[in-house]
Amino acid sequence: MRHLIDSTDLSVAEIDRVLNLADDIIRDPAAYAECCRGKILATLFYEPSTRTRLSFEAAMLRLGGKVEGFSSASSSSVSKGETVADTVRVVGSYADIIAMRHNKEGAPRVASMYSPVPIINAGDGGHQHPTQTLTDLLTIRSLKGKLSGFTIGLCGDLKYGRTVHSLAKALSRYEGVRFIFISPEELQIPRHIITEVLEPSHQDYREVRSLEEVIGELDVLYMTRIQQERFLDMAEYERLKDVYVLDPAKMALAKPDMIVLHPLPRVNEITPEVDNDPRACYFKQVKFGMYVRMALILTLLGVKNQLAPVRAEEPDCVPEPPVCKNPACITTIETGLKQRFIYTDDTHAHCKCFYCEHDA
Amino acid sequence: MRHLIDSTDLSVAEIDRVLNLADDIIRDPAAYAECCRGKILATLFYEPSTRTRLSFEAAMLRLGGKVEGFSSASSSSVSKGETVADTVRVVGSYADIIAMRHNKEGAPRVASMYSPVPIINAGDGGHQHPTQTLTDLLTIRSLKGKLSGFTIGLCGDLKYGRTVHSLAKALSRYEGVRFIFISPEELQIPRHIITEVLEPSHQDYREVRSLEEVIGELDVLYMTRIQQERFLDMAEYERLKDVYVLDPAKMALAKPDMIVLHPLPRVNEITPEVDNDPRACYFKQVKFGMYVRMALILTLLGVKNQLAPVRAEEPDCVPEPPVCKNPACITTIETGLKQRFIYTDDTHAHCKCFYCEHDA
Amino acid sequence: MRHLIDSTDLSVAEIDRVLNLADDIIRDPAAYAECCRGKILATLFYEPSTRTRLSFEAAMLRLGGKVEGFSSASSSSVSKGETVADTVRVVGSYADIIAMRHNKEGAPRVASMYSPVPIINAGDGGHQHPTQTLTDLLTIRSLKGKLSGFTIGLCGDLKYGRTVHSLAKALSRYEGVRFIFISPEELQIPRHIITEVLEPSHQDYREVRSLEEVIGELDVLYMTRIQQERFLDMAEYERLKDVYVLDPAKMALAKPDMIVLHPLPRVNEITPEVDNDPRACYFKQVKFGMYVRMALILTLLGVKNQLAPVRAEEPDCVPEPPVCKNPACITTIETGLKQRFIYTDDTHAHCKCFYCEHDA
Repeated sequence: MRHLIDSTDLSVAEIDRVLNLADDIIRDPAAYAECCRGKILATLFYEPSTRTRLSFEAAMLRLGGKVEGFSSASSSSVSKGETVADTVRVVGSYADIIAMRHNKEGAPRVASMYSPVPIINAGDGGHQHPTQTLTDLLTIRSLKGKLSGFTIGLCGDLKYGRTVHSLAKALSRYEGVRFIFISPEELQIPRHIITEVLEPSHQDYREVRSLEEVIGELDVLYMTRIQQERFLDMAEYERLKDVYVLDPAKMALAKPDMIVLHPLPRVNEITPEVDNDPRACYFKQVKFGMYVRMALILTLLGVKNQLAPVRAEEPDCVPEPPVCKNPACITTIETGLKQRFIYTDDTHAHCKCFYCEHDA
Repeated sequence: MRHLIDSTDLSVAEIDRVLNLADDIIRDPAAYAECCRGKILATLFYEPSTRTRLSFEAAMLRLGGKVEGFSSASSSSVSKGETVADTVRVVGSYADIIAMRHNKEGAPRVASMYSPVPIINAGDGGHQHPTQTLTDLLTIRSLKGKLSGFTIGLCGDLKYGRTVHSLAKALSRYEGVRFIFISPEELQIPRHIITEVLEPSHQDYREVRSLEEVIGELDVLYMTRIQQERFLDMAEYERLKDVYVLDPAKMALAKPDMIVLHPLPRVNEITPEVDNDPRACYFKQVKFGMYVRMALILTLLGVKNQLAPVRAEEPDCVPEPPVCKNPACITTIETGLKQRFIYTDDTHAHCKCFYCEHDA
Repeated sequence: MRHLIDSTDLSVAEIDRVLNLADDIIRDPAAYAECCRGKILATLFYEPSTRTRLSFEAAMLRLGGKVEGFSSASSSSVSKGETVADTVRVVGSYADIIAMRHNKEGAPRVASMYSPVPIINAGDGGHQHPTQTLTDLLTIRSLKGKLSGFTIGLCGDLKYGRTVHSLAKALSRYEGVRFIFISPEELQIPRHIITEVLEPSHQDYREVRSLEEVIGELDVLYMTRIQQERFLDMAEYERLKDVYVLDPAKMALAKPDMIVLHPLPRVNEITPEVDNDPRACYFKQVKFGMYVRMALILTLLGVKNQLAPVRAEEPDCVPEPPVCKNPACITTIETGLKQRFIYTDDTHAHCKCFYCEHDA
C-alpha cells in the first residue's frame, strides 16, 4: 500500500503516470464515472480548507465513489484526546482512502504509519501540500506541453509559502527549468531550497526584487499571496505589497503565451482586471486540481495505474534522537509518539525530524 | 444559462412549468431517481440554515445526484478574505450547480455574475428566498387546485418577513387573489409592497389587526413567526404575540377547507394542538419544498424542462451610482465590486441598489 | 414502524436476527452494496460524535444509500428554538431514516413519537447508546462464538459509563454470563443495575478493585475510560488511573484467548504496546460496529429482516406526574412536552421519567 505524504513520495516516472491518467480522464470523464463505485473517501480536515476539501470530494464523487468526513476540528470530536494513530485506525475501518488536513506538521506521516488504508496529505501546517504540487505540474504540462525547458517566475512570499517550496522541489527533478524567485528580501526563498534542491539538481536560478524587470522572460508566472500577518511593520507591508501586485500594466510586459498560476485564494495580489486576460489560468488550475486528485485516488486505490508496493528503503535514523524544537510538529501533541530523526547527509553530520522535517 | 436569484426571475409561464414538473415527480418519483446521475450540487451556506440545506440536498440525492459543500462560514475557510466572485468560480469548477445562502443581501446575485454554473439563491439576508416562494406556490396549487381566485391571510410579522413579501409579489402575478394582511401596526406590510406590487396588479387587499375577525373568510392562512427581537418593549411583545397565536379556538372559526401554511421553524405562533387538525399543512409544505427543488434543479441543469437562455434585457443603470446605505448589502464586504444602481421607474426619478434592492 | 431508542427495544430474538444479518453482510458485502439504493439516512448530531457519525454514514453508503445531516448544533440552525418534535417531522419529510445524537436524555424518544420515519438513538447524554451495545454483542458473538456461558470483566468508570450499563442489561438477557465489575469504589457499578438487572436475571456477578487479581479468569475484558473530570481530588485520580491501565504486564496474566474490547476513544487506559497483541480487538470492534449498523438500517427500513410492527403494550403512566429532576432531561428544553412518568414495579411504588428514565 502506498500513501502520498510528501511531494517526492512519487518518483518522476510515477508522477508522469498519474498526470497521464489525469489527461485521459480529462479527455473522457464518462469512462471514469463509475470507477470507484462502492468506495468511500474520508476527508479528515482538522482545520478548515474548503477549496481543498471540495476538490477531493468532487474528485471522488466524479469517480462514482462516496464521501464522508469532517470539515473542522470544532465540528468533530476526534480532537478530544484521541491520537491521530487511533483515529486513522477507526476511520480506516469505515473508508477505503483518507485525505487528511492537519494543523500539525507531520500528522499525515504519523497517520500513514498506522492506517489500514492509503493516506493522502491534504496539507499539514506549513510543511507539505503534495496534491497542490501535482495540480501545478498537471496545469503546466497541460498548458505549456512540457515540464522541462522553460522559465518559471515564483513571486510573493517565498519564505513561508509551502506551495512554492514543493513546486521548486518537484520541478527540480525535470531538466532545464529556469527559476526566477521574485520577492522582497524579508520573504526570499530559504537557503536550504537553494543548497539542497536547486544546486544539487544543477538548475539555473536567480533571485530578484522586482516583478516588472523579469516578467518579460517568463513562460510561467506563479503568484502567491503576501500575508499581512508576516510583517511586523505595517508601513513596510503597504510599501511592498504593491510591488508584487499583478495588474494589466505588468501583464502588458509579459510574453503573449505566458501563463499565470496561483494556488488560491488570492486576496489582492492579482487585480480583478487580469481575470479576463486569456493568460490568467488560475481558475483553470482549479479544475486541473480536481482531475489530478481523481487520478491520484484511482492510483492509490489500485483501481488504475498500480504503483509498486514499496518504493524506498527505510531512512537511516538517529539512534538517540533529540526533542523536535518545532512548536508545530505533531510530536508536540501526539501521545505515545517517539521522537525520530533521520540523517540528511551521508556523513551523518546533519539530521532532521522524520515527521515535520525541521532541523535538529 | 439561467439562475434563480429573485422570485420573479422566472416568468409566470416558467413557474408553471416548474410546478408541473414537480407534480410529475410527486406522481412518479422513481422515474426521476437517476436523472441527475453524475451531477454535483454544491451547497454553499455562509450561515446555517439546516432545513433549507437538507431540503436542497435531499432534492439532489433523490434525483440520483451528489452533494458537497459547507454548512456555515465557521466550518469553512471561504470567508478568509476570498470574494464571492472567486469562490463561485472555484466551486463552479467542481460542481454542476450551486445553492448559496449568504448573510449579505445580493451575494447570490454577485455569484451569478461570475459563476460558470447555475446559482440558486437559498436565502440572502432579509432580501430574497425564492425557493421558499416556489414551495408556497406548489403547496397552494396542489392543495387548493389553483393559484388564482382565492383569499389568503398573511399573519404575523409582515414588516420584516421576506417570505411574505416574496409570496405577495409572486401571487400578485395571478388573477383574483384577495390578500388580507393581519399584523400589529408596528409590523404591518411595508408601503412599497402595496404601491409597487399590489396596486399595479389591481389585487384586492385589506389590512387588519385581528386574526379572529377574518379567519372565517380565508382559503389559505399563511402564518409567520413574530420575532421577539423585533420589539423594543417586552410588555408590548407579550401583549401582542397571543393575538396572533393560532390555536384550536381560532381554528374553530375557520372554513373546513382552509389550509394553514408556515415557512417554519415555528416557535409558539401555532400551538401543538393545531398540528393534528387536518387543515394544518405546514409539514406537508416541507415535502412540497423538496419536490419543487427537485423540479428547479432539473430545470436549471437543463435535464428537463429547458428554459429560454435569456429572459430579460439588461437593466437601466444609474451612470454615477451612490454608495449603497444598506449595512447588510454585499457591496459592503465584496472587494472589487462596484456600486450599481438601477432605475425603478420610467421617469428615472427613483433607483435602487442592483444587488440588495435597497432604495438609494 | 419500529425505532431503536433503548437497547432493550429489540427482543433477544430480534437482536439475534440483526446479528445474523450482520454476519451475512460480513460474509458477502457485495450482495448488499445496492440494497438501500434511493434511500436517505439523516444524521442529526446535536453534539459532535465523529466516530459514531462516520460509522452510521459508512454503513448507509456501503448499502448504496445516501446521507445528509449535521455534525454539531453549532453548524446547524435547528437548535434555534425549534422543538425536536418539529425537527424530525421536517427532516422525516426528506429522509427515510434518522440517526439522532443529542445531549439531552430522552430526545430520541421524543423524536420517535413524532417522526414519520424510523429513529435510531445514536447516543443521548449519559442515558443510552444502543448501537454501541449491538456492536459489543456482535463483536463478542463473532470472536467468542456465543453470547452465553462466558466471563466478562468490565473495567474502569462503571458509575457513569453508559456503555457498561447497556451492555450489562443486554448480556443479562442471555444465559450463564458471569460479570466481574472492576472499578474504584467511587466509580462502582450503580446499585440499580445490580438490583434491577443482574439479580432478576440470576446472573453471577462480583465486584473487585483490582484488574490484576481477576484478569486471568476473563474471556472478555471490556475496558472503559476513567474520565479525569469525574474526580474532585486530582491526587486520587493520579493514584487510581494506573491501577486500571491495561499494559503488557497485565496482559501476560490473561488467558491466551481472552479478547480486549473498548468503546473508544481510549486515552491512556490501554497502552499502545497492547495494540499489537492479537487479543486486542478494539479496532476490530469498530468494524463490527459498521456492519451491525448496516444490519440495523436494513432491518428498520424493512428492506431485509422485517420486524413485527408492534412489540409491546403502552407503559403504565403515573396519572399526575412530577416534574423530572434530571437537569439533562429533554423535558427541560422541549417546549410543549408534557411530563410523563411510568411505574417501574407492579405495586406502583416506584416510577421513573418516561424519557430519561431518572427516578422521580
